[in-house]
Amino acid sequence: MQRIAMLGSGFIGRFYAESLQGQRSKDKIVSIYSRREDSAKKFAVDYGCEHWTTSMEEAVAHPNVDVVCIALPNNLHEAAVMLCCKHKKAVITTKPLGRNAAEAKRMLEAVEKAGIFNGYLEDLVYTPKFLKAFESVSKGAIGRILWAKSRETHPGPHSDWFWDIEQAGGGCILDLGCHCIEITRSFIGKDIKPVEVMCWADTQVKPIDAEDHAIGLVKYENGSIAQFEVSWTFRGGLDLRDEVMGTEGTIWMNNFLRTGFEMFTTGKGADYVAEKAESNTGWLFPVGDEMNELGYNHMFAEMFNSLEKGKPPKETFYDGYVVNAVLDAAYKSAKTKLWEPVMLDIWRGREGVGKHSHLTDYDPDHYLIKEEVTHYGARKVILKNKTTNKITEKVLE
Amino acid sequence: MQRIAMLGSGFIGRFYAESLQGQRSKDKIVSIYSRREDSAKKFAVDYGCEHWTTSMEEAVAHPNVDVVCIALPNNLHEAAVMLCCKHKKAVITTKPLGRNAAEAKRMLEAVEKAGIFNGYLEDLVYTPKFLKAFESVSKGAIGRILWAKSRETHPGPHSDWFWDIEQAGGGCILDLGCHCIEITRSFIGKDIKPVEVMCWADTQVKPIDAEDHAIGLVKYENGSIAQFEVSWTFRGGLDLRDEVMGTEGTIWMNNFLRTGFEMFTTGKGADYVAEKAESNTGWLFPVGDEMNELGYNHMFAEMFNSLEKGKPPKETFYDGYVVNAVLDAAYKSAKTKLWEPVMLDIWRGREGVGKHSHLTDYDPDHYLIKEEVTHYGARKVILKNKTTNKITEKVLE
Amino acid sequence: MQRIAMLGSGFIGRFYAESLQGQRSKDKIVSIYSRREDSAKKFAVDYGCEHWTTSMEEAVAHPNVDVVCIALPNNLHEAAVMLCCKHKKAVITTKPLGRNAAEAKRMLEAVEKAGIFNGYLEDLVYTPKFLKAFESVSKGAIGRILWAKSRETHPGPHSDWFWDIEQAGGGCILDLGCHCIEITRSFIGKDIKPVEVMCWADTQVKPIDAEDHAIGLVKYENGSIAQFEVSWTFRGGLDLRDEVMGTEGTIWMNNFLRTGFEMFTTGKGADYVAEKAESNTGWLFPVGDEMNELGYNHMFAEMFNSLEKGKPPKETFYDGYVVNAVLDAAYKSAKTKLWEPVMLDIWRGREGVGKHSHLTDYDPDHYLIKEEVTHYGARKVILKNKTTNKITEKVLE
Amino acid sequence: MQRIAMLGSGFIGRFYAESLQGQRSKDKIVSIYSRREDSAKKFAVDYGCEHWTTSMEEAVAHPNVDVVCIALPNNLHEAAVMLCCKHKKAVITTKPLGRNAAEAKRMLEAVEKAGIFNGYLEDLVYTPKFLKAFESVSKGAIGRILWAKSRETHPGPHSDWFWDIEQAGGGCILDLGCHCIEITRSFIGKDIKPVEVMCWADTQVKPIDAEDHAIGLVKYENGSIAQFEVSWTFRGGLDLRDEVMGTEGTIWMNNFLRTGFEMFTTGKGADYVAEKAESNTGWLFPVGDEMNELGYNHMFAEMFNSLEKGKPPKETFYDGYVVNAVLDAAYKSAKTKLWEPVMLDIWRGREGVGKHSHLTDYDPDHYLIKEEVTHYGARKVILKNKTTNKITEKVLE
Repeated sequence: MQRIAMLGSGFIGRFYAESLQGQRSKDKIVSIYSRREDSAKKFAVDYGCEHWTTSMEEAVAHPNVDVVCIALPNNLHEAAVMLCCKHKKAVITTKPLGRNAAEAKRMLEAVEKAGIFNGYLEDLVYTPKFLKAFESVSKGAIGRILWAKSRETHPGPHSDWFWDIEQAGGGCILDLGCHCIEITRSFIGKDIKPVEVMCWADTQVKPIDAEDHAIGLVKYENGSIAQFEVSWTFRGGLDLRDEVMGTEGTIWMNNFLRTGFEMFTTGKGADYVAEKAESNTGWLFPVGDEMNELGYNHMFAEMFNSLEKGKPPKETFYDGYVVNAVLDAAYKSAKTKLWEPVMLDIWRGREGVGKHSHLTDYDPDHYLIKEEVTHYGARKVILKNKTTNKITEKVLE
Repeated sequence: MQRIAMLGSGFIGRFYAESLQGQRSKDKIVSIYSRREDSAKKFAVDYGCEHWTTSMEEAVAHPNVDVVCIALPNNLHEAAVMLCCKHKKAVITTKPLGRNAAEAKRMLEAVEKAGIFNGYLEDLVYTPKFLKAFESVSKGAIGRILWAKSRETHPGPHSDWFWDIEQAGGGCILDLGCHCIEITRSFIGKDIKPVEVMCWADTQVKPIDAEDHAIGLVKYENGSIAQFEVSWTFRGGLDLRDEVMGTEGTIWMNNFLRTGFEMFTTGKGADYVAEKAESNTGWLFPVGDEMNELGYNHMFAEMFNSLEKGKPPKETFYDGYVVNAVLDAAYKSAKTKLWEPVMLDIWRGREGVGKHSHLTDYDPDHYLIKEEVTHYGARKVILKNKTTNKITEKVLE
Repeated sequence: MQRIAMLGSGFIGRFYAESLQGQRSKDKIVSIYSRREDSAKKFAVDYGCEHWTTSMEEAVAHPNVDVVCIALPNNLHEAAVMLCCKHKKAVITTKPLGRNAAEAKRMLEAVEKAGIFNGYLEDLVYTPKFLKAFESVSKGAIGRILWAKSRETHPGPHSDWFWDIEQAGGGCILDLGCHCIEITRSFIGKDIKPVEVMCWADTQVKPIDAEDHAIGLVKYENGSIAQFEVSWTFRGGLDLRDEVMGTEGTIWMNNFLRTGFEMFTTGKGADYVAEKAESNTGWLFPVGDEMNELGYNHMFAEMFNSLEKGKPPKETFYDGYVVNAVLDAAYKSAKTKLWEPVMLDIWRGREGVGKHSHLTDYDPDHYLIKEEVTHYGARKVILKNKTTNKITEKVLE
Repeated sequence: MQRIAMLGSGFIGRFYAESLQGQRSKDKIVSIYSRREDSAKKFAVDYGCEHWTTSMEEAVAHPNVDVVCIALPNNLHEAAVMLCCKHKKAVITTKPLGRNAAEAKRMLEAVEKAGIFNGYLEDLVYTPKFLKAFESVSKGAIGRILWAKSRETHPGPHSDWFWDIEQAGGGCILDLGCHCIEITRSFIGKDIKPVEVMCWADTQVKPIDAEDHAIGLVKYENGSIAQFEVSWTFRGGLDLRDEVMGTEGTIWMNNFLRTGFEMFTTGKGADYVAEKAESNTGWLFPVGDEMNELGYNHMFAEMFNSLEKGKPPKETFYDGYVVNAVLDAAYKSAKTKLWEPVMLDIWRGREGVGKHSHLTDYDPDHYLIKEEVTHYGARKVILKNKTTNKITEKVLE
């Protein structure tokens, strides 16, 4: 059993609380910190917390607290982490880890120096679909990974601080891109180094300083490529789709808008207000169990199981730091219009991984380009002569 | 926290165990009963049970046990329930409750006489999608319910006892129809009386005595109609789809084969063996978190929360009994080729509910048949004169 | 090239005209008959017809006319057909052929006696999806057919005469069921005799005398079963789905509401009025090329190609007659609540086809019930002893 | 009626022939040219051509020929076009127009100097789905266009010449990217200038000199962005998906792999060989009417209707030239790793279109960032002060 201090009583803090204390859980939020007293009190009542406070340190230091869960705006993560280091409390924090890699690196070094358990709450690599897809990919079901894409777009966040570049540290790249980067990096291999990033970003719709739409490409040392598509200007709900392509297959995941649940309502029967949906009449696509589908349940389980076994979780501050380094390169690229290198002072994966060969032998003299069954049922191969480079077709049988 | 005795260590017992002890649960299986010693021992090791036995009564009577969970073939349910009554243990049992309504009624009367908590483990009315759909339907989002359909078909069960009519008590109607009947009954309203059943059943493919394919219609007192489609001869995986039609909308749910997770594999990369899938190459449609998608997690949570609050769960032995009564009528109808009445000695819902009127007033002289927007943008109504019955069109504006 | 007289200038007549003269067609509508002069004139202008008339016989008898296309309310089919017989003109008629089998039989006998080309315009067995599915089924891709289902539901027809039982001859069973019956009959085999029908029908929503919702089952001599689901009370658009199950596979077709075209609109950009859709904001599901998707193009091509080759088309008045006979049985069953025999005075298919055996030999002593790969990768068979009927499992390898 | 000379009797020539002479068409292929005599003869027999030849000029110059249709490898387009100019024959050519913009420009200038009808056979802007989507977009149904993406990937082309960089002129960018560029350009507006391109390309799998996988971004003068994803390494069939995002909505199109036709087959019933599919067992996703779904029918109809009306078709050599210019920039960018300008010597669209403002007034003092309905039903706005730039929330009512 884990006793938790929750820092932050807003949208994400409440989401976490639903997951942490949902169903038949043995874990418990014992202390809630909020900057606003009424919000702290309300949260304490709603989730049965024995202690509430408007002092962050008080919550962290509370003797009943085993683990601190940070659910605060991005600009407050570092201060909260430092308090956990001071009081030697296990810490888990919402995404992104920092507003940039420098912040993230300081947090990473601090928790490691303090020797405390640290978890990076990247829920989207814990969704049931991701976990199953990842298992298949790991077993080689789709072969060598060539490309992985993650898309997260919606009509913009709910809370005002997201729109303020000082508090948030950035726009939709930071807010949503952090998910996409870790999802695609996981498929390609977390031990494979991201080397450079090209990013387009623009403010197309919203009257803000930060970007509201961006597309990026991340090259990895082994020749794989990752792609992210993020936006706060998408109309139609929460679009959360991932794709992976390998030499032997492909995986498509639609995590939110098309999950096998479809509903039409004229709206005359009742005022049905669907969460995150943009309309409440016509065809709607609800999600059955949002908490589970978004990975919160599996994430907290893995975090606390790891903590109890004395081992690091799948996602640590180190991963958060790598993600921030990729994000930094993306922001730089959006300005310079160049492919920008990913600056990783700390790198714990493999070094010098070469690009995979694209030559498949057919026979001693030829490479195989393609093998297919023609529409008249014959097997055909397209070959390339190793010496002459000449390309020929050959029908077998 | 609940301490559970599991009766049965087969496919469904293990599924239940995964759910009961999954994630960060506070509940625990303390005793396992199996007819075969090696199976009991293996289960005890796999799920960390402190006690195993080949005596059903020993498991039920074990002093550490609070709740007995029956995961046995259909012909053993009654004996197990009677032991729970004898030892005054809370009991929850897998579906169907009995092989027929007579058995179910005896069990219902026994648990009520014994005054013990009784839960009917109909997981498919606890799936996240069903719960959300049910909430919408309850709030009136699709209006008055006209029709509800549930389909469960697959290539046949895994264990041999299902195919033996004596142990199972029936074929796919009993095995799968029990789900469909409770799902559709829930949408129509559990207080509305099912009045008669028409059922077609046949043994089309399998060399067995029981039916391997059936389609049934169930009429309810308020004029709503329910439909079930069940089969052990479907090829393509587990087809689990529900639909509901109301006067103001419709809901479509695909619980297993199309949930937003699609994968193609040539099979050259690795031998991927997908559960319940019929192939391991080509396009595959895995389910992220089967346990959650099939309702086990939400079902056990509701059962134990109810137990702890001292109130009956959503699904009790009474519901299991009503389902068995509908199943009995279906079996009879399949033989007599007639609409057979549902024989309910015990009925706790509403009585004498009339059929809803199908007359909507348009004005004092007319009923409204239809209102639509024409392709040239005008509003058109089709009306029926109350006196003359003449049908006319009228373009408004 | 064919020169056509169109009888009827309403919704369906215009649909036919779009298809007949669409794209780069060599065929031409030369005469249009309508009961209302202004409607005939307008049609003539819109489709460039050289001749218009309010006399049905004048259109039929017109010397330039090769083929008469009947697009009239059901109660006028017979009179129109008789005129074609009188003037020896090839005739093609919209569905259903008659209001009942007696009418259909008279028309069938008349055209055959007159020796004229006769085509039954059942477009839904000419949709591109149906044609491809049918080809696969014919080649055995899904094995022996066990069950075929067709569903057509929508919020009710556009024209007033459909709602008047005298003109229409019935409700949604006649209007929509005729499609479903021919689709499923085609999959099962048009030479296999439909033997009996069970039908539930009700008027649940509309203030009309005819049924607005019905479900039916049709048994075929070879043990296959067909199912139809029809309604004028469905909310959400035009739901047109077919399914077929065979011993070796299954086919699912969604012909209208989910065809790979999805659109979300807030409605602020423009007033988009989608055809047949029930809303013009939110998620919409348009169909790319309705004319082609609904089979009109392929239907007229096959009709006229057959006519030019001097052979009967795939769908003749005989097929229309068989469909009417099944419909009659459905209407009777809805009243008697009994399985009603299909009365076919004229039957040109196979006679006395027995039910297919459901016994598959495994070895001399056993039947095979099921073969599967277990989750631990082994092959398992479930067998039934031919003498003792005992059911056992056997793990191979 | 048009009389056509077909140049090329390969895969695409035959596809065109099926469309040109399909259904009840009045058009006719009268002459077929192929480099190989046997191939020309076979084509002539299959499609009933009165004339065949191995001399390209003979086919073009044939007195019965009205229109020349070029279906040759990319390196032969220019020579064929010049013959059409010489003999003053209307010409339509397969995609891409040239191997590069220089070739394309020469062809464009030649046909215009010769004053002949010229059509660019970009079938994918003629698919029924595209046509309908384009109509909605044109009417403003999804607002101002922000982003358009087109994806075309498959396991590689059928004919050997595609794999030879000399004949083809490039790899998958040229082969598939030309489609994507014209699709996205059409959504954004063909009068809006494409200004620069960033492209990643690699040879990840095939032993060839050309790229087998590429991703590109194209910036337009008005601030809209287009994206293309192309590959010859995708496993799973032909993946043809387009998406468009506007300020008021979004459109998703799946043109091939998910069109509402789903089939499962064990493969035991029959050897079903699906076209372009990668497997013939398991779940398959056939397309009903490939010819129509891929736009061939609507394309030829529009081409010939325009020709007969004496007006240019929607897609002319000018469009082919613009596409080639964008492709050139993509190839250059893939090498230089820079955003490369699109070099358009000839530009007939609008000039100097500024970027659309992203500022929406809420009141005199504030811009509107977002308006939403909270989960408790209130309307909330997020605003930005025009002077202070401060971001605030305000709950209305």
